[in-house]
Amino acid sequence: MPVGTAATVKGISTPQLAETGAQMVLANTFHLHLQPGEAVVAAAGGLHRFMGWSGPLLTDSGGYQVFSLAAINRIDDGGVLFRSPRDGSRHTLTPETSMRIQMALGADVAMAFDQCPPYPASESEVAEACRRTHHWLERCVAEHSGDGQALFGIVQGGCFPALRLASAQRVAALDLPGIAVGGVSVGEPVEEMHRIVRLLGPVLPEAKPHYLMGIGSLREMAIAVAQGFDLFDCVLPTRLGRHGSALVGGERWNLRNARFREDHTPLDERCPCLACRQHSRAYLHHLLRSEEMLGRTLLSLHNLTTLLRFSDAMAQAIQEGCFSEDFAPWDPASAAARTW
Amino acid sequence: MPVGTAATVKGISTPQLAETGAQMVLANTFHLHLQPGEAVVAAAGGLHRFMGWSGPLLTDSGGYQVFSLAAINRIDDGGVLFRSPRDGSRHTLTPETSMRIQMALGADVAMAFDQCPPYPASESEVAEACRRTHHWLERCVAEHSGDGQALFGIVQGGCFPALRLASAQRVAALDLPGIAVGGVSVGEPVEEMHRIVRLLGPVLPEAKPHYLMGIGSLREMAIAVAQGFDLFDCVLPTRLGRHGSALVGGERWNLRNARFREDHTPLDERCPCLACRQHSRAYLHHLLRSEEMLGRTLLSLHNLTTLLRFSDAMAQAIQEGCFSEDFAPWDPASAAARTW
Repeated sequence: MPVGTAATVKGISTPQLAETGAQMVLANTFHLHLQPGEAVVAAAGGLHRFMGWSGPLLTDSGGYQVFSLAAINRIDDGGVLFRSPRDGSRHTLTPETSMRIQMALGADVAMAFDQCPPYPASESEVAEACRRTHHWLERCVAEHSGDGQALFGIVQGGCFPALRLASAQRVAALDLPGIAVGGVSVGEPVEEMHRIVRLLGPVLPEAKPHYLMGIGSLREMAIAVAQGFDLFDCVLPTRLGRHGSALVGGERWNLRNARFREDHTPLDERCPCLACRQHSRAYLHHLLRSEEMLGRTLLSLHNLTTLLRFSDAMAQAIQEGCFSEDFAPWDPASAAARTW
Repeated sequence: MPVGTAATVKGISTPQLAETGAQMVLANTFHLHLQPGEAVVAAAGGLHRFMGWSGPLLTDSGGYQVFSLAAINRIDDGGVLFRSPRDGSRHTLTPETSMRIQMALGADVAMAFDQCPPYPASESEVAEACRRTHHWLERCVAEHSGDGQALFGIVQGGCFPALRLASAQRVAALDLPGIAVGGVSVGEPVEEMHRIVRLLGPVLPEAKPHYLMGIGSLREMAIAVAQGFDLFDCVLPTRLGRHGSALVGGERWNLRNARFREDHTPLDERCPCLACRQHSRAYLHHLLRSEEMLGRTLLSLHNLTTLLRFSDAMAQAIQEGCFSEDFAPWDPASAAARTW
């Protein structure tokens, strides 16, 4: 899922977004609550109509951003009292308000309001966050009233296997339409994250979609897909694009680099995106050196297209029996080369 | 002509640019000479291929930017020695180098290298700039070698009718494929500019395209079209768009204004652009308030579309015999209302 924080994937129009192959898009409840406010979005007819995206949408709960972006005034079992980073105004987010905001936004999937502990955190801190997350989840379920919107629960537990397994069991027991793993990609070593993915993949309810939150690098997606995960979100492709980096064949290239100045070949010959189809590395380099908006848009389009092609290639490779967790289909020696 | 200063109309992809109805696009020789340099553009196969625009292109001579943007070290009959505003490096622009750079860029139309005096300037200063402009024009003609590229001459003369008429006669005598009026929109009162347009329109060679440089507001275009002008360029639609303003029915609206916060109607119901077709005033307001790139892109698209629709409406009204210099087809009482 490309990330459309403020009801827009940064720099990308919705027809361009559809061209990347994107299906489901994520938007941030925290940002939309502060600006323009869920009442404006609801009056527009919901998030789909407000942002002009008819495909599936998912909103997060606001919890992660409250803990990472806002000045927290108080946190207890009731919820979180915080100040807006926009204007210093006071706001409260609770399981109930998160559900009401998300219902007003009207995405296809709402996420439970959870507490995501930082990394590192002690086992007792993480256990306390799990206890609160499970308590909040029950309140989310009580407050949420379907109406065409699915609610997904979130497994926490940090890097502690016993807490992770217990959390997975608690969340799975509620039999919600989807299940997510949160509290990853919060600063832990990547090997820790792989360990959690390998631990939880096999025990999550098989018939439900599995969502690994905040992950979007190619290697981590392939490892998680090998463990049965289905959904991912990450700002990486658009953030890299805005900073002048392109994903090409498993590498990251800085297009500002002087070696691209007179390189008149396409960025990635096999990529169908506008940047690769219509322009050269030299032109993209020139746009970035000139601080032109179009450079950031074109690289964002390319990076999104690359991640979505990678997802499609994984799906095809699974069907054809040539998928493995070291999936790198751009390598001519890969058994899955025909999927790229 | 939308302005694509650095080989990109700011924030607009070339498929989006085609959707606005744009045909001819202007690019700036001064900027492209400094970055990436005409050799890179030539090696890419010329400006059309470099920027991915297959429609007609025009490059200006670099003269206007040298005088308005650069630190001038010396100006004499030979040319201009200046420092780059990018990195302080020294450059010389002469009629010959301007022609060689523009030939390397390879647009469909090149402009003669002229001296555009500031406003206000004394009659003797303007007369001196005219003398130099005519002398440089002869050198441009001698240096320029067609090869599919047309060279247009430029009439100067400031706000002095006798100098303007003499300049028009000198430039017209060279029988070039097009003729431009420069030195307008340089700070003079708008009435002075109208006076020059009304003076020169009737005396310019009728069979050649007439290009009024740097003009792009609706009223000024209509007055100039009534005097036989055909071509215009202006950064106004994209600059206004980047700053959050939209052209609607002859007015300029600041979409950041709180009155648009809960206005879920289209920006302009009769406009076919993406911003009007797919989004609401409330959404555009939200994007601008959130400092999202997409807001600037959508308003730029809308403003370009509005100017190009206005041009098309003028063409249709001329054919139908209902064109007048106070052309305002959005007014239901206008005789030309059916052209909007």
